[in-house]
Amino acid sequence: MNVHRSCKSYDWESVPVLMYKEDGTHFKDITRRILFDGTTGIDAQLRYFEIQPGGYSTLESHEHVHQVLIIRGSGRALVGDSIIELKKLDCVEIKPQTWHQFQAGSEEPFGFLCLVAVDRDKPHRPTEADLVKLCSDDRIANFIRL
Amino acid sequence: MNVHRSCKSYDWESVPVLMYKEDGTHFKDITRRILFDGTTGIDAQLRYFEIQPGGYSTLESHEHVHQVLIIRGSGRALVGDSIIELKKLDCVEIKPQTWHQFQAGSEEPFGFLCLVAVDRDKPHRPTEADLVKLCSDDRIANFIRL
Repeated sequence: MNVHRSCKSYDWESVPVLMYKEDGTHFKDITRRILFDGTTGIDAQLRYFEIQPGGYSTLESHEHVHQVLIIRGSGRALVGDSIIELKKLDCVEIKPQTWHQFQAGSEEPFGFLCLVAVDRDKPHRPTEADLVKLCSDDRIANFIRL
Repeated sequence: MNVHRSCKSYDWESVPVLMYKEDGTHFKDITRRILFDGTTGIDAQLRYFEIQPGGYSTLESHEHVHQVLIIRGSGRALVGDSIIELKKLDCVEIKPQTWHQFQAGSEEPFGFLCLVAVDRDKPHRPTEADLVKLCSDDRIANFIRL
């Protein structure tokens, strides 16, 4: 049996806080924790991402699916061409090749579980042409952070 | 994009509340919801189980692994020969062929996420011989509900 005790709010003993990504300036104030690592006969990883107020994840797309469950605070996300409000316990599925970006609100951390397959492709960021297309929609242009 | 909005505390639009198991008297006051169903290229299901005060899951064992994250209330579990207290956000891994049973406390619902592989074996319940062995430990004998 492995037990990861939650030692304080949304932190766990023996679960390190990781950088969201190795490098880049296309995200802000976001951390990553791997709660279940996909090595136990379940070919999926459950990660916990937490975005501080004002922060955001990378605007990106990929073939693999994200299954997301909000467990802390609230925020917003671009998913495809929709901008959605997300609050605690909402579930959202990010389908393949769908532009997406998560953003925290201004007041509290925004935390969510994200389930992915262990075997998955790398995300890609929008090209200039993708950005022109995305930004032809004013709502999206005003939402995204690069 | 599929969104399951949480419509009230620990309940979701378009996520039906299911019976824990089809039949049996070896569990009490427990429901099951399938949040992510394993049909989207991720070969794992994320279920939400909720046990009402005084209720319990089946005492059982199986080859497949359970990865559990508590998201509501607190309770206790038998895992192997350990009886552990579990509170919100604790994570516990149930390894293959490990006897386990979850029990709610007396005051509040006890809710947890349980991640499993889509392709998994059926649980089995203890034989008379298994029970004799389990109950040779007084702590376990006093804990388990059949």
